[in-house]
Amino acid sequence: MKQKQKPRILVCNDDGIDGEGLHVLAASMKKIGNVTVVAPSEPRSGMGHAMTLGIPLRVKRYTRNSRFFGYTVSGTPVDCIKVALNHILSEKPDIIVSGINYGSNTATNTLYSGTVGAALEGVIQRIPSIAFSLTTYENADFTYAGKFARKLVRKVLRQGLPADTVLSVNIPNIPEQEIQGVKVTAQGKSRWAENTIERDDMYGNPYYWLSGKLQLLDDDLSYDEYAVRENYIAVTPISIDMTNHDALQDIRCWKLNK
Amino acid sequence: MKQKQKPRILVCNDDGIDGEGLHVLAASMKKIGNVTVVAPSEPRSGMGHAMTLGIPLRVKRYTRNSRFFGYTVSGTPVDCIKVALNHILSEKPDIIVSGINYGSNTATNTLYSGTVGAALEGVIQRIPSIAFSLTTYENADFTYAGKFARKLVRKVLRQGLPADTVLSVNIPNIPEQEIQGVKVTAQGKSRWAENTIERDDMYGNPYYWLSGKLQLLDDDLSYDEYAVRENYIAVTPISIDMTNHDALQDIRCWKLNK
Repeated sequence: MKQKQKPRILVCNDDGIDGEGLHVLAASMKKIGNVTVVAPSEPRSGMGHAMTLGIPLRVKRYTRNSRFFGYTVSGTPVDCIKVALNHILSEKPDIIVSGINYGSNTATNTLYSGTVGAALEGVIQRIPSIAFSLTTYENADFTYAGKFARKLVRKVLRQGLPADTVLSVNIPNIPEQEIQGVKVTAQGKSRWAENTIERDDMYGNPYYWLSGKLQLLDDDLSYDEYAVRENYIAVTPISIDMTNHDALQDIRCWKLNK
Repeated sequence: MKQKQKPRILVCNDDGIDGEGLHVLAASMKKIGNVTVVAPSEPRSGMGHAMTLGIPLRVKRYTRNSRFFGYTVSGTPVDCIKVALNHILSEKPDIIVSGINYGSNTATNTLYSGTVGAALEGVIQRIPSIAFSLTTYENADFTYAGKFARKLVRKVLRQGLPADTVLSVNIPNIPEQEIQGVKVTAQGKSRWAENTIERDDMYGNPYYWLSGKLQLLDDDLSYDEYAVRENYIAVTPISIDMTNHDALQDIRCWKLNK
């Protein structure tokens, strides 16, 4: 009997090759598949679906504790996926996992997220892809997130994903026994209250930092941000088709040809 | 009788402050409103919805032919919108226009486009926003695109836009009389056939350029890329909600709580 081949799993993130969540995710995936890690050489949070044009990319082998761990790309998470598929991997992966991100990727964060960006690029290249985020910026414990990622990846490897769709998974930073369950959610309406900070440099010239705080505007468990605040894991199907299909007919009535 | 105030129009792009399409768009908008230009200090194509974290932003006044033209921001198109709304404009604009981009933003290009990114950021901030692109990389003639932009902006100022929705407008680079009309379209399925290029530097070390060619996978005029190739202007409603709503029920049947 021919032995069943282990799935090929490509692991990426946006926090960069040293991101703790990347190492937890890679270790978790190694229990079920043949893993290749390709990650940005530097932290590239907030890069959304950016790709690098006009500057060439460098690829390096990355060693940690004297052992080969993976490859770095001197670009964005999307660049990592493109370079991995075109130059690093000899065969198409069975699945791409991105993360585990440090900080939530709910609501409008979905658009800014490099973690989600990498997964969307995977789906554009027709490979099932999942983005994982831990909803905290402090005292992160990725243990349960890594375990849940493995469970979900096994399921997706068995049954696939809806066409043109990424799963964006947000996991609360709480002990496993406090997790209330899993909710399949929509991208929430919550958004950043902007609070850009102005400072003066040593010459008295101003510079600006982007800042802000995510305001909860969702009101039930059918939305990702509300669900994670209520200690649920939120699993959100995100499409590469950004068309507002409901609006097509309305706008056709505008008579733009007149 | 109180004089009706002219609309406040914020103009941005992703090709940077020197982009020819930005100057055509600004000139066109000045005929109908009070215009403020805030654009990246350098070309930032392919930046998608990226924002700048970890590096402060600089804002400069930009003069061309000895006349003040607008402001530059040392960041992405999304950064431009955030800084404009928080630090440059004293009042919220009535509309944001982005472009006119050099090159088409149809199909999956929507996700990579900084031009669309700026407009999406406007809609996140609850300001009606439109992205304009001329579908060529050579011999660009922005004349008719600027004229059509003004016509569409007038219409949107009158009647608004569907909630959470940008219009992404792609205009063929042909004389006005050859334009077949306007189609309200969905984001097409066309995508880049990747063709990343490997080169060696002077030390024999490889580097990589992202490259490729957009393959036509759309088959009728209800899709943006097909419509522009048939010499129509394509107007596509793009949502900041990326949820695949049709997939929610299916995934709920996966019993992820088991």
